[in-house]
Amino acid sequence: MKLYELAAKEDDRRFSPYCWRTRMALAHKGLSHETIPWRFTEKEAIAFSGQDKVPVLVDGEKTISDSLRIAQYLEAAYPDRPSLFGGAEALALTQFVNAWTDRVLHPTITPLIVTDIHAHIHEKDRDYFRTSREQRFGKSLEDVVADRDQKVPDLRRTLEPFRAIVRERPFLSGDRAMYADYILFGAFQWARCISPYRLLDDGDPVAAWRDRMLRLHGGIGLKATGYPV
Amino acid sequence: MKLYELAAKEDDRRFSPYCWRTRMALAHKGLSHETIPWRFTEKEAIAFSGQDKVPVLVDGEKTISDSLRIAQYLEAAYPDRPSLFGGAEALALTQFVNAWTDRVLHPTITPLIVTDIHAHIHEKDRDYFRTSREQRFGKSLEDVVADRDQKVPDLRRTLEPFRAIVRERPFLSGDRAMYADYILFGAFQWARCISPYRLLDDGDPVAAWRDRMLRLHGGIGLKATGYPV
Repeated sequence: MKLYELAAKEDDRRFSPYCWRTRMALAHKGLSHETIPWRFTEKEAIAFSGQDKVPVLVDGEKTISDSLRIAQYLEAAYPDRPSLFGGAEALALTQFVNAWTDRVLHPTITPLIVTDIHAHIHEKDRDYFRTSREQRFGKSLEDVVADRDQKVPDLRRTLEPFRAIVRERPFLSGDRAMYADYILFGAFQWARCISPYRLLDDGDPVAAWRDRMLRLHGGIGLKATGYPV
Repeated sequence: MKLYELAAKEDDRRFSPYCWRTRMALAHKGLSHETIPWRFTEKEAIAFSGQDKVPVLVDGEKTISDSLRIAQYLEAAYPDRPSLFGGAEALALTQFVNAWTDRVLHPTITPLIVTDIHAHIHEKDRDYFRTSREQRFGKSLEDVVADRDQKVPDLRRTLEPFRAIVRERPFLSGDRAMYADYILFGAFQWARCISPYRLLDDGDPVAAWRDRMLRLHGGIGLKATGYPV
C-alpha cells in the first residue's frame, strides 16, 4: 500500500489534516504502508488518481482519494481488522463530524497558523499557497494572523460541543478512539506539525484528549516531526 | 407510560425541543403513552423526579428525566423495538449531535423566537420566563428579537454541516430517521409550535428534511398545534 501525503520543505514534516486522518485509519487497521511525500504543486504526480488532492491511497490495483472515501474503502476491504466506524448508523454520524470539522473547526484554525504553514512549505509551493489563500481571505497572510491572539478564543468556543463529550470520557467514540476521533485529531496534528502557536489551555479537556490521541498506535502522532503542544 | 411535557397557555401547544425528542423517540419505538401538560412554574408537580425540568417519563415503577437519558432508557428497556441509535458507537456520536444542538444550534434560534414564546406561555409562567431570560441576555426580550432579520443568517450558517449531510440523503442517520434526527427536529418543532417566524428558505435542503420529519410516525409533528413552516 502506498499513501501520498502532503509534506513541507522537509520530507518528514507531514501536516495535512486529511492525510493524518488516513494515517491514523491505517494504523487503526494495522495496515503497513509506504508513504510518498507530495507537494501542493505536484499535480502531475497524482494525476493518475483522477483528481488533484491528497491523501491518495494506492492498494494494489485500487486507487482511492478523499480521506472519508479512503476510510470507507478500508472498512469494506479489511472487515476483519478493527472497525473504523462501528456500523452504518455510526458511519452516518461520523459524516456529520467530518462536515463539522471541515466547515466549522478548520476555518477557526487556519487564521492562527497560516503564516507558519507558508514558512514551512517547500519553496516551489509558496507562490501557489500565498496567492490562493490571500485570494480566499481577501488580505495578506500576515494580516490574517496579525490578531491571532484575539482569534484563538473563537477556536476554544467552537470546540465546546466536543469538549462536553471528552470531559466525560476518553474519546469522542467512547472508550476507544475510532475514525470520528481521527477526524478531530487531524485538525490538531495539522497545527502541531507546522506551527508553534498554542491552540489550547493546559487545563482544557480537549488538550487531555489530544494527549491521549498522540500516544495511540505506538505514538505515531507524538513521534511525527512537529512542535511540542 | 406517562410523559410530562412543557405546554403553553393551551394544553395542546407543546413546544419544548427536549420533549419533542422524547415524543419522537416514543413514536419510533411504537410506545403509546399519556401526556401531561406542565408549565415552567409547576416545579412541585415533577418534584418526585428529583429535579425540576421536563421531559419526565414515568414507566411503571421507573421515573426518568433528561431527554437523552430517557432515550437511552427506552433503548435498553425496549430492545426488540426499532433501535434509536444503532449501537454503542452511534450512541457516542449521537451525544455529540446532542451537545452541538444544545450548545450551538439552540442559542441561534432563541433570539429569533423568544418574544413569541413569551406571548404563548401560560400567564403564570410569564414573569418567571421574562425575568430568567432577560437576566441571561442582559436585555429585554423585545430588544433581543428586534434585529432578528439580521440574526437569521447566523442560524442558516450554523446549519451548514448538517445541511451538507441532508443535501445528500434523506436523514442525518441515513435512509431512516433515528434519534440524532429527532434531536435536530426538536429544535425546529420548538420554533414551529410557538412562533410564526420563518427560519429557513424554501430551497434549503434542511427545509426539505424538516418536511420529511414532520410526516414521520403518522405525521405527529405536522398535526401538532403550531404554525405552518
